Amino acid sequence: MLTLHGDHRSGNCYKIELLLAQLGLDYRFVAVDVLRGQSRTPEFLAMNANGKIPLLQLDDGRCLAESNAILCYLADGTPLWPAERFTRAQVLQWLFFEQYSHEPYIATARFIVQYLGRPPERAADLAAKMAPGHRALAVLEQQLAMQPFLCGADYTIADIALYAYTHVADEGDFDLTPYPQLRAWLQRVRAQPGHVSMIRN
Amino acid sequence: MLTLHGDHRSGNCYKIELLLAQLGLDYRFVAVDVLRGQSRTPEFLAMNANGKIPLLQLDDGRCLAESNAILCYLADGTPLWPAERFTRAQVLQWLFFEQYSHEPYIATARFIVQYLGRPPERAADLAAKMAPGHRALAVLEQQLAMQPFLCGADYTIADIALYAYTHVADEGDFDLTPYPQLRAWLQRVRAQPGHVSMIRN
Repeated sequence: MLTLHGDHRSGNCYKIELLLAQLGLDYRFVAVDVLRGQSRTPEFLAMNANGKIPLLQLDDGRCLAESNAILCYLADGTPLWPAERFTRAQVLQWLFFEQYSHEPYIATARFIVQYLGRPPERAADLAAKMAPGHRALAVLEQQLAMQPFLCGADYTIADIALYAYTHVADEGDFDLTPYPQLRAWLQRVRAQPGHVSMIRN
Repeated sequence: MLTLHGDHRSGNCYKIELLLAQLGLDYRFVAVDVLRGQSRTPEFLAMNANGKIPLLQLDDGRCLAESNAILCYLADGTPLWPAERFTRAQVLQWLFFEQYSHEPYIATARFIVQYLGRPPERAADLAAKMAPGHRALAVLEQQLAMQPFLCGADYTIADIALYAYTHVADEGDFDLTPYPQLRAWLQRVRAQPGHVSMIRN
């Protein structure tokens, strides 16, 4: 059976849990508390030298890190990551966009507000995330005005990856009111068969 | 013919140029000067709403952004991105590591020093990149102590992606002396058939 090392509150982990549910795959969940240093123990670093969650462990013990690489591994051979060469690359384009231009602002703002409790010494850092975060949301808004899902007519792992932190962007002070296309897409993602909510406690 | 919109001095663009050379593919190069706002013109934004280079344009006009997605597109079906499911995902793991844990420190430090001329108001920002940059280099050092290339015995696009900014890390104040395995790997990458150097003027 697959083992997922992670934290239910992390959007990067939720991506994997959502995909596993939609693929109907069973897995064992091992909770890792990053704030208590549990991703920096010798045992964890032996599985992922980069000390980050989520981490997927296969039956035979092999480990795979990086949330979006895990999505690709699990969705390989399914319609959620189409094998046609250009479409496969387009999905990857959005996955890299997510990790470089979206997550560092949208997810990290939520981390500062929700996990760290908005400490005063991070106020400037939090404020600096607003403009680039809104630029990323505007890019999504523009794309979703043209087509129902990020890579066209069909739901893919690109939608899963971008949904994870976008749907809780308000928890990091991002107001989604100015993005009607984005909000309609959030509803379309939620309406997909087998959708599960993020565990929020 | 393929068109690459980019800047020769950018490691993200060099990745693509190196791969195109090693695959023996012809292409047209269109220079885009980011510092002069050429990636934010209406014409460019129509090709990539995220306003970033490199951008690959196919014969039929379709565009693909994100350097590592472009690597995957070009290497799809070649031994540089193996099709075996786990190996394919391992390559992606290193590509996402590069964009999230390496490039924002190693490449951005070089940008501040080389492109912006080390302005005093960025001194604290530059200093803050040193520790996470060295953590990324240490992760590479550990991986390359175990095997000749990042994903095992064979050279892949993971090596191309990580080589691009690592081999010029010194231009962003990163001293590679403490990383002998990494330095030996840089030599192995340079020794690959069809290797081309970064254009540095």
